[in-house]
Amino acid sequence: MCSPALIEQVKKRISRRNALAALGGAASVASAGCLPAAVSSKKSASPKNTAKPAPKKKRWSSKPVEQVSFSRVVDLSHTLHPDFPAWFSEGEEVTTRGNRTFVPPAVVEVKPVFEWEPDKVNLNQITYWEHVGTHMDAPSHFSEGSTVDEIPVEDLVLPLVVIDIKARAAKDSLALLNIEDVRSWEDEHGPIPERACVAMNSGWAKHVGKPKYKSLDANGKHRQPAFHIDAVEYLMEEREVIALGVDTFSFDNQHSPESDVHYRWLGDERWGLENLNNLDDVPTKGATIVVGQPSIKGASGGPNRTMALV
Amino acid sequence: MCSPALIEQVKKRISRRNALAALGGAASVASAGCLPAAVSSKKSASPKNTAKPAPKKKRWSSKPVEQVSFSRVVDLSHTLHPDFPAWFSEGEEVTTRGNRTFVPPAVVEVKPVFEWEPDKVNLNQITYWEHVGTHMDAPSHFSEGSTVDEIPVEDLVLPLVVIDIKARAAKDSLALLNIEDVRSWEDEHGPIPERACVAMNSGWAKHVGKPKYKSLDANGKHRQPAFHIDAVEYLMEEREVIALGVDTFSFDNQHSPESDVHYRWLGDERWGLENLNNLDDVPTKGATIVVGQPSIKGASGGPNRTMALV
Repeated sequence: MCSPALIEQVKKRISRRNALAALGGAASVASAGCLPAAVSSKKSASPKNTAKPAPKKKRWSSKPVEQVSFSRVVDLSHTLHPDFPAWFSEGEEVTTRGNRTFVPPAVVEVKPVFEWEPDKVNLNQITYWEHVGTHMDAPSHFSEGSTVDEIPVEDLVLPLVVIDIKARAAKDSLALLNIEDVRSWEDEHGPIPERACVAMNSGWAKHVGKPKYKSLDANGKHRQPAFHIDAVEYLMEEREVIALGVDTFSFDNQHSPESDVHYRWLGDERWGLENLNNLDDVPTKGATIVVGQPSIKGASGGPNRTMALV
Repeated sequence: MCSPALIEQVKKRISRRNALAALGGAASVASAGCLPAAVSSKKSASPKNTAKPAPKKKRWSSKPVEQVSFSRVVDLSHTLHPDFPAWFSEGEEVTTRGNRTFVPPAVVEVKPVFEWEPDKVNLNQITYWEHVGTHMDAPSHFSEGSTVDEIPVEDLVLPLVVIDIKARAAKDSLALLNIEDVRSWEDEHGPIPERACVAMNSGWAKHVGKPKYKSLDANGKHRQPAFHIDAVEYLMEEREVIALGVDTFSFDNQHSPESDVHYRWLGDERWGLENLNNLDDVPTKGATIVVGQPSIKGASGGPNRTMALV
C-alpha cells in the first residue's frame, strides 16, 4: 500500500536530494556542521556548480505569542571564554568549499582597552568568529536567507520541547536524535506544538571543558550526538517547528558529513541554537525558550543569552 | 524638623560625596557616562589618588521570579550597525582619566570570513568596543564590581517600570529624570516594585540616525536626557531597584559631568541598559524586562537583545 501521504513524503525526499545536489560536488566534500581543515577539492571550489537559490521565504510569523506564565528562569547558555570548545581550534588551518584558507583566531578575545587602573573605567574590545559558545545559526549561515537582524523578536520566544537521548549518547558519541525519538515523544506528550523550538538533550553540556566534549576519533575528527536528517524533515514537513537546539556544537555529525541538516533547515528559513546548557533543568514540554540574540546587522548568527521560562 | 529618615538620608549623601571624592581629582575632569576626548589632567592621571575599593557586595538575588504572565513580546533593542550613534566617534582621539590615549574603531565591524560565494557558508568576524548599541553596563564598567558573567540569569528578568519625560525632553535636550518624576509616578502607580528595572522614556530612540540623537552643542559635546543623581539615590536607598534603563547612550549628561550616576549605581553592584528602543510600546507598569545578555567572561557590558514581555 502506498498512501497519498507516503507518496507526498517520497516526493519531498526526492526534492531534498535535488536541493542538496544543486550545491554541486561541494556537498560531497563538506563535513558536518562546518568546514574542517583541508577537505575541499578543486571541483567543489568552482562557483559554476552553484544553483540559483530559492527566493527567500516569509518564515517569520511575528505572531503574538500564546498566553504564557512562568515563575522560574533557567539559563540555557554557557559562559563564553577563550578556552570554550569550538568547531575550529585556534591557529588550525581551515580550507572552505571555495578552496580558500583561513586561520581561526581565539574563540573569543576580550582585550582590555580602558582599565580600572589607571583609567577608572573598564571597557574591552571583543572579537570572535560568530559561531562560538551558546549561539544562533541564522538561516544565512548555510544559505542566502535571513540574517540575525531579520528575525523579529516574536520569533525568538517559542514553546520549548526537549527530547532526551542521553542513554543512547552515553554509549555512542555519534548517536542521532532520529524520527523514532520524535514519534515516541509525541506518543507520550501529543504533537510537537506549532512554532516550537525542539532541543536535543544528549547530556553533552556537562562535558564542556573535558576532552569528551569533542570526543576526537583517531583521525582527529569530532564525535558528538546530532540530529538525523529524517527527524529534521519530519519537524519541517509534518510539524511547524521554527528552531532546532543541540547541547553540542553542531546539528550534524559524521553521519551527515555533507551538513545535510544545516543546509536543509537553515536553507528553509529556519534557525537553530548550538551549545545549549542546562537542558536537564527544564521540563520536556511546557517551558518557553527566549533567545536573547543581539541584533547585529548582517550577522549569520553569534553568541546569545538563551533562557527557559518555566 | 529633622526626621530620623532625613538625617539618615543626609548621612548617605555625605557618604556618596566621600565615595566620589575617593576617586581622586579624576572625577572632576571626567565627563558624563564615559570619557570624552582630551579632558584628563596630570592630576587625575595619578594612580595615587585611588582609594581602596569597597568589597564586592552580594547584590544578586538569584531569587525565583514572581509568577509572570504575558502574551506579547516587544523588542527593546535597536539593530547594531557600523553607523549606529555611539559615545565615541570612530577615529576620534580619546584620553582617559589614566592619561592614556586611544582611537576608537568602528562601532561594530562585521567582517565576512566565509562567504556564500564561493564558500557555501557565511561566517563573519565581529569586533566592537563593549558599550555600543543597546547594551548593558555591568557594575565593572565603572567599578571593580561584577562582570557580565557574574550576574545570574534570574536577575536579568525583572519587573519593568517606564517613566515618561518626553514632554520635558522635547524642550530641553539636557532634561533629567528627577526625584519628582519618580514620586509623581509612585503617587499614581504605587511604590516602584522590588527588583525592578526603571527605564527613562525621553522619546530619544526615534532620533537614532539623526543629528538630534547626539544634539551636539557648540563645543561638540553631546546633549541627551539622563537621570538626576537624586532620583538614582532614591531608587537605591529607598527602593530595591536592580537596573536603570535609558533610551539615550548614557545615564549621565552634562548636568553630571563627573559621571555621578555611573559611579554611584554601578559602584553599588547594580547595572543598567543604554540605547533602549520602543519604550512607547510597553505599559508604564506591569511588563517584565528580559535582558538577553551574552555571558562573556570578564565583559564589562556589551550589546544584548532586550525584550519586554507584556
